Amino acid sequence: MANVLVLYHSVTDCTAQMARYVADGAASIKGMDVRLVELGAATAEDVVWCDGIAVGCPTQIGTASWQMKRFFDETLVDQWAKIDGKFGCAFSSSGGWGGGAELTCQTITNMLINYGFLVFGVVEYVTQTHTLHYGAVTAKAPRDEASQQACFKLGVRLGEWLGVYVDRDADLHPLATRVSALPSS
Amino acid sequence: MANVLVLYHSVTDCTAQMARYVADGAASIKGMDVRLVELGAATAEDVVWCDGIAVGCPTQIGTASWQMKRFFDETLVDQWAKIDGKFGCAFSSSGGWGGGAELTCQTITNMLINYGFLVFGVVEYVTQTHTLHYGAVTAKAPRDEASQQACFKLGVRLGEWLGVYVDRDADLHPLATRVSALPSS
Amino acid sequence: MANVLVLYHSVTDCTAQMARYVADGAASIKGMDVRLVELGAATAEDVVWCDGIAVGCPTQIGTASWQMKRFFDETLVDQWAKIDGKFGCAFSSSGGWGGGAELTCQTITNMLINYGFLVFGVVEYVTQTHTLHYGAVTAKAPRDEASQQACFKLGVRLGEWLGVYVDRDADLHPLATRVSALPSS
Amino acid sequence: MANVLVLYHSVTDCTAQMARYVADGAASIKGMDVRLVELGAATAEDVVWCDGIAVGCPTQIGTASWQMKRFFDETLVDQWAKIDGKFGCAFSSSGGWGGGAELTCQTITNMLINYGFLVFGVVEYVTQTHTLHYGAVTAKAPRDEASQQACFKLGVRLGEWLGVYVDRDADLHPLATRVSALPSS
Repeated sequence: MANVLVLYHSVTDCTAQMARYVADGAASIKGMDVRLVELGAATAEDVVWCDGIAVGCPTQIGTASWQMKRFFDETLVDQWAKIDGKFGCAFSSSGGWGGGAELTCQTITNMLINYGFLVFGVVEYVTQTHTLHYGAVTAKAPRDEASQQACFKLGVRLGEWLGVYVDRDADLHPLATRVSALPSS
Repeated sequence: MANVLVLYHSVTDCTAQMARYVADGAASIKGMDVRLVELGAATAEDVVWCDGIAVGCPTQIGTASWQMKRFFDETLVDQWAKIDGKFGCAFSSSGGWGGGAELTCQTITNMLINYGFLVFGVVEYVTQTHTLHYGAVTAKAPRDEASQQACFKLGVRLGEWLGVYVDRDADLHPLATRVSALPSS
Repeated sequence: MANVLVLYHSVTDCTAQMARYVADGAASIKGMDVRLVELGAATAEDVVWCDGIAVGCPTQIGTASWQMKRFFDETLVDQWAKIDGKFGCAFSSSGGWGGGAELTCQTITNMLINYGFLVFGVVEYVTQTHTLHYGAVTAKAPRDEASQQACFKLGVRLGEWLGVYVDRDADLHPLATRVSALPSS
Repeated sequence: MANVLVLYHSVTDCTAQMARYVADGAASIKGMDVRLVELGAATAEDVVWCDGIAVGCPTQIGTASWQMKRFFDETLVDQWAKIDGKFGCAFSSSGGWGGGAELTCQTITNMLINYGFLVFGVVEYVTQTHTLHYGAVTAKAPRDEASQQACFKLGVRLGEWLGVYVDRDADLHPLATRVSALPSS
């Protein structure tokens, strides 16, 4: 068994919806115990508990929301240098394509790296024109199937890496089953 | 009069198409002399000539193509510390949303900053779900009108800033005419 | 005359010390009216007032402090899309070299770009082994002369660009007086 | 046993010197088979062979050198989507502090993420004023002991994660032996 934390901050429910798809994706992998936790209810103990984390927040002014930043600056700070070696990834909803969601994912993964996490994105495309190479991103809510799949896939990959590296189940490695990283035309 | 260089590298014609829209946008502003130059034909003199530049290339492995990087590393290097104070912006086509186009624009603007350029993005949304806050981005070719408008708008803004700061025509300032940065519903 | 705002957040006084050098640098340029304002005392009106800004905060978990982020997310948000075309730059103090000060400057300049600022770094080296290409950075307080010069130089460059582009004094252009961007050996 | 590739590009020997310290650090960990390979001699097979990689290049114009970029764009491209799940980290030598070495490490780790690597930095400080949170960085050559330790430590951490996650030797986990991430005063 491995523990997955999906930690999110949401203002307009867009990132909250993303978080549910991420959690569903992680839960679809054998052996994952998934906690879906909104920022206001999250504690440092949730992060200590997890083996892997997906962190999401709205893209605000091109980077993580101040509320999510405060969690890493203050709530979690006593755990700094005590929780190295967990796995992490990011997701973010912005007002539109080109609005900074990739930059926000980068800020989030940088915060995770600072805490000693090993971070990753996802190689696969979910449609001909949507991928999640540096984290799952959407324009506003994940209303279309591509955005939903991107979020779900992020959770799947998190679960797979935890399966491989924490639960030591080599069958879960994405290369064991991947036919193609590109969608069929 | 102010000089605008639209410098692009393209492999599959996607970024080339973007470049034409950017050039059209710049040319729509009073007093702009626009050169649209493909990387293979570009010289350091083109950059010296310009007052402002828009640089575009494909998103490759999450950042600028090696060919565009080589232009800044080698072709332009003798001009380093001799061309400060020009204006610059970026555009990039990636394989899909979430594929790194924002990160590529950031690499491009960082290269421009290194050469002493003043860089910018665009505040406005071009549709309800497309903006160009850190440069114009597309998923593959700019086939849809939103992507075309994003590219065009980048050129417009480049022309406007050159109009304001080089040609000293305050009437061209975007705040002089903007009603709203958000599209009407 | 042009208006310069040096806006800073400081916890251990390191960034506050940087801010004073930045302000001194800006004030050394002819025609600059400089306000040095700590985050707790800063208002949106300060930003509206300025023609150019230098924003500094501690590097915390590899990016801007949540307090500075909140200023851009909340305090300033009503000015979004109303203040385009100002000039901006960044500075940050981290716990050590390699600690994320460059990444923090990048977050700050991205926030400024989101608000429509034209952002820049500085081409020159201040010593053989210290520059400020993407903003002024220090390891802890600016105790050594190189760190002090980096901060001062950032303010100088901000003043110079405002002199050139707002006050229209071409004599202030750094290329008008620069002999070399590299320090003498 | 786990396989470590230290892949570097060097122009002035600075990054080459860093690479040797990184390789020494990795080799200091039980069970690591380390290859130190200069870019000109590197093949895609070297990357396929490794379980973990440290990639280093000079900071050029604020990001990875075009030669290193070309390796990822062309030499390695046939392996895309076939090598997910390896571990990776970055190092870079810049002309001076504030010169873009952190930004270059970020470009490198982004390229690795694109290829499906799990990337990391190092929590520990190596001296009171030097760390390697997002990769090992130096100003010019690693002449001082702090820069040397930063490079060595990066290799150590790469070896430790490979020990823990590939060789399944929990005794190698940094939290098993760490007393403090901060140096003694």
